[in-house]
Amino acid sequence: MSNNSNRNWKTTLHEIIYEADTPAGKLFDIVLLITIIASIVLVMLESVKHIDSNYHDVLNISEWIITILFSLEYIARIITVKKPFKYIFSFYGIIDLLSTIPKYISLIVGGVHALAALRALRLLRVFRILKLGRYLGASNSLIAALKASRAKISVFLFAVVIVAIILGTIMYMVEGEENGFTNIPKSVYWCIVTLTTVGFGDIAPQTPLGQFIASLVMILGYGIIAVPTGIVSAEYAQHNKPKTKEEDIHLNTQSCPNCSASKHKDHAGFCYNCGYKLNNE
Amino acid sequence: MSNNSNRNWKTTLHEIIYEADTPAGKLFDIVLLITIIASIVLVMLESVKHIDSNYHDVLNISEWIITILFSLEYIARIITVKKPFKYIFSFYGIIDLLSTIPKYISLIVGGVHALAALRALRLLRVFRILKLGRYLGASNSLIAALKASRAKISVFLFAVVIVAIILGTIMYMVEGEENGFTNIPKSVYWCIVTLTTVGFGDIAPQTPLGQFIASLVMILGYGIIAVPTGIVSAEYAQHNKPKTKEEDIHLNTQSCPNCSASKHKDHAGFCYNCGYKLNNE
Amino acid sequence: MSNNSNRNWKTTLHEIIYEADTPAGKLFDIVLLITIIASIVLVMLESVKHIDSNYHDVLNISEWIITILFSLEYIARIITVKKPFKYIFSFYGIIDLLSTIPKYISLIVGGVHALAALRALRLLRVFRILKLGRYLGASNSLIAALKASRAKISVFLFAVVIVAIILGTIMYMVEGEENGFTNIPKSVYWCIVTLTTVGFGDIAPQTPLGQFIASLVMILGYGIIAVPTGIVSAEYAQHNKPKTKEEDIHLNTQSCPNCSASKHKDHAGFCYNCGYKLNNE
Amino acid sequence: MSNNSNRNWKTTLHEIIYEADTPAGKLFDIVLLITIIASIVLVMLESVKHIDSNYHDVLNISEWIITILFSLEYIARIITVKKPFKYIFSFYGIIDLLSTIPKYISLIVGGVHALAALRALRLLRVFRILKLGRYLGASNSLIAALKASRAKISVFLFAVVIVAIILGTIMYMVEGEENGFTNIPKSVYWCIVTLTTVGFGDIAPQTPLGQFIASLVMILGYGIIAVPTGIVSAEYAQHNKPKTKEEDIHLNTQSCPNCSASKHKDHAGFCYNCGYKLNNE
Repeated sequence: MSNNSNRNWKTTLHEIIYEADTPAGKLFDIVLLITIIASIVLVMLESVKHIDSNYHDVLNISEWIITILFSLEYIARIITVKKPFKYIFSFYGIIDLLSTIPKYISLIVGGVHALAALRALRLLRVFRILKLGRYLGASNSLIAALKASRAKISVFLFAVVIVAIILGTIMYMVEGEENGFTNIPKSVYWCIVTLTTVGFGDIAPQTPLGQFIASLVMILGYGIIAVPTGIVSAEYAQHNKPKTKEEDIHLNTQSCPNCSASKHKDHAGFCYNCGYKLNNE
Repeated sequence: MSNNSNRNWKTTLHEIIYEADTPAGKLFDIVLLITIIASIVLVMLESVKHIDSNYHDVLNISEWIITILFSLEYIARIITVKKPFKYIFSFYGIIDLLSTIPKYISLIVGGVHALAALRALRLLRVFRILKLGRYLGASNSLIAALKASRAKISVFLFAVVIVAIILGTIMYMVEGEENGFTNIPKSVYWCIVTLTTVGFGDIAPQTPLGQFIASLVMILGYGIIAVPTGIVSAEYAQHNKPKTKEEDIHLNTQSCPNCSASKHKDHAGFCYNCGYKLNNE
Repeated sequence: MSNNSNRNWKTTLHEIIYEADTPAGKLFDIVLLITIIASIVLVMLESVKHIDSNYHDVLNISEWIITILFSLEYIARIITVKKPFKYIFSFYGIIDLLSTIPKYISLIVGGVHALAALRALRLLRVFRILKLGRYLGASNSLIAALKASRAKISVFLFAVVIVAIILGTIMYMVEGEENGFTNIPKSVYWCIVTLTTVGFGDIAPQTPLGQFIASLVMILGYGIIAVPTGIVSAEYAQHNKPKTKEEDIHLNTQSCPNCSASKHKDHAGFCYNCGYKLNNE
Repeated sequence: MSNNSNRNWKTTLHEIIYEADTPAGKLFDIVLLITIIASIVLVMLESVKHIDSNYHDVLNISEWIITILFSLEYIARIITVKKPFKYIFSFYGIIDLLSTIPKYISLIVGGVHALAALRALRLLRVFRILKLGRYLGASNSLIAALKASRAKISVFLFAVVIVAIILGTIMYMVEGEENGFTNIPKSVYWCIVTLTTVGFGDIAPQTPLGQFIASLVMILGYGIIAVPTGIVSAEYAQHNKPKTKEEDIHLNTQSCPNCSASKHKDHAGFCYNCGYKLNNE
């Protein structure tokens, strides 16, 4: 009996936490969403000197509250789920843990900075709440496209890195240390900055020859950005087409029982080939 | 009678203001267009110290003239339109009001700067004059494409922001305050600057590790720019080519002499709708 | 007789100058190409202080030689062409003149800087020599695509400018003069620098709010770069398709004399529809 | 007999070096891959002052070891290959040589910097090991697309350079030396930096007019980046979808029972080749 009520209690909690169909479930999601965003804002404010110094206690307490809330949620998730370990070692299970423990560790170790990044992982939890399923479902063709173009893009990026290393070495020899190209790694870094058209300008070629080579690098980078874009858009166009085409021209797959001609238009009453009566009404 | 002449007078004014078919209407549009552009130039010149100090009165008077002209136009629009309130609360109605009142408010409040932005909204009015209908009509397929890819692009941008926050936090810990990454928000700002390949260079990583991570961020940003581009161009390509599609699937334009159903497949010997013999051999 | 030889002489010269089929014509083109590039190099070297000061006479004399060569060529073109005035007022005719006179004017006026740009126009003449016809012919579909997307892209760029002006005004009010946003035109300039992902960094937001708005501007710019790219690639894909398709599937235009079925495959010996012998061998 | 064993020995070695099917061959490739990457890391570390000063001997010795290993490999490749000279003058043959000799030359000449770039070429050897054949095979359509768009892109880049030179000359005259545009080549360099949206910011326009022109340059660059992207993605899309094309034009796979000609159009009643009656109704 108590066992039974116990099960009911678990089931209800499971509904609230894992589903968003019941009012309680919706409320839970909204509260969680707000908490997560609040906690990220906290992490950021903490890092701002003058804010941290003035409101240190406020931030500290709120962080504790959020941490405890997350802890309770984490425990609740483990209790209510059928296969606890499956959850614990799932992607979101690990995220949930990593984004909860830092504050506790800071008690022992002290110094929260080294763990701030972990707390930033809380952001990933937003995806779960927003039930991004449909969005991602909507972009299945996009994912398929990215998968299809993965090999090509990796070759492309690999080539970019090699080009960057070789050109970086050349620039190091042309410009030398007096112009900021103090060593090859730094030159390679500059070369990537330039190839990707980011162009910080913290390092910039000073010698005419260096500027000439830089121009070539830039035009190269300007040209090759077309490659990944081309690949993705073409692949995407392909993976995105068939389904829509089907819809556009309503050619169904049934074949005429008389002449076995296929690809009839939907609602076609008669075979376009032999005029035989089709029974698709 | 006077009522009648009154109506005529209103109708004529309405034609002049809202239409561009009569010579008067064309003239009105041209004058308005010039006035708007002139007013924007004014707003800009006002903000330039040495110009404002030398020609303050000229600018002030011209601004007043333009404001009065806009006020008269605004009143005229309200009088002449059939449903005044529908206009007042329409997009352009609000723009018209917002872009007119600042100068009046500056009389009471004083200090025009805080309202300069509102006056900049006058630019939006240009769209109305240019009757951009046809242009936008021309790019209906573009809008359709953007609508279709909205969900995917929002997911994409959301992911970019999350990546920026996480990487920004990491960079904050790697580079630290001594290298300009004074706090996480600023690091996130830097990360967005880098991911979008803008690269101001006001903040730039100094440590080798920081530069290495930055390189990854840049190559990432260089790669993922392909995604929105790919989506838009693919979607656009689809929404833009119904005509060509028509050709691809051999649906001819002849209609069945019996049931007048059209869009038969080429080589169709019989009407798909009524089975009537088609004589297209 | 002399008239006759005269004509011959003219015709020969015309062949040499305007055509590239005869050995002499080819030689002429090559010499001209070298001269043009040499002259551009000259214009550049002249502008480099220490080079100009050391080799001023050399540069000056070479410039004179080139100018005289171009003058002779210009005169020869006028003499030998059938309709001199048509040439003189043609695109290349004007380019030829503008790129020749500066040196003469510098005699009277003095100070070559103000005319350096005109001499840079000589570069455009390269297009004529390279007989870019075939290249441009090769990219007819590209030009068609650009024409087709002109309206949309102009609307797009117009929108970008308006966005830049409005956002620029906002940034001017947010950042203010102490952070380099000294006036609205400069803020708009900064906004364009940012929207286009160029990001010089000579002006950069300092206030947190300014950096937040800047982040939005950057993500916006990062997103909207997809629009022109999408338009061009989609339009280009369309304008580029029909022709290639034709080639790919060799469907010729002849129709069967018996059943007048068209779109036969090339080398098809018999009508696919009625089996009638086709005489396309 | 010894000759025979000799051949066997050669064959085995050839298998190990040139193939990756035998365990020994796999091992060889892995070892080589590690050596190459190690050597690149060496080249980089050498260039970092404080590392080089502290660990100069370690770096020097390791470099010698790697150089000797590469030398042995190079000799082994020459011995075991059927046509030594074909290999020596092949792309990879030259790479292998160039990436091996620098250390030896440094013995005679001294000063390794001038040759560091050559050693960076070792990276290219990675491609051979990774047997990128399949990847490149996977991106054959990409290569085809790049080939197809080569002419157009070269015209495009050529136009970009000319635009850069002309605009650079104008900026030089507008901004002048006091604002960093010290000479035309440098202005052209700045113009390329801006057109490609890199934007270092080491040189930036200061005069209002200069900033206005710069804005135009940026919007231009922002717009024309769409062109190469558009070309590549469109061409790539075309070269990538023969399969889908097949479907579009209804060429079925059945072959004529009489002359066994295939690729008949759907609904074809008779063989296009021999006129034989096809029974596909």
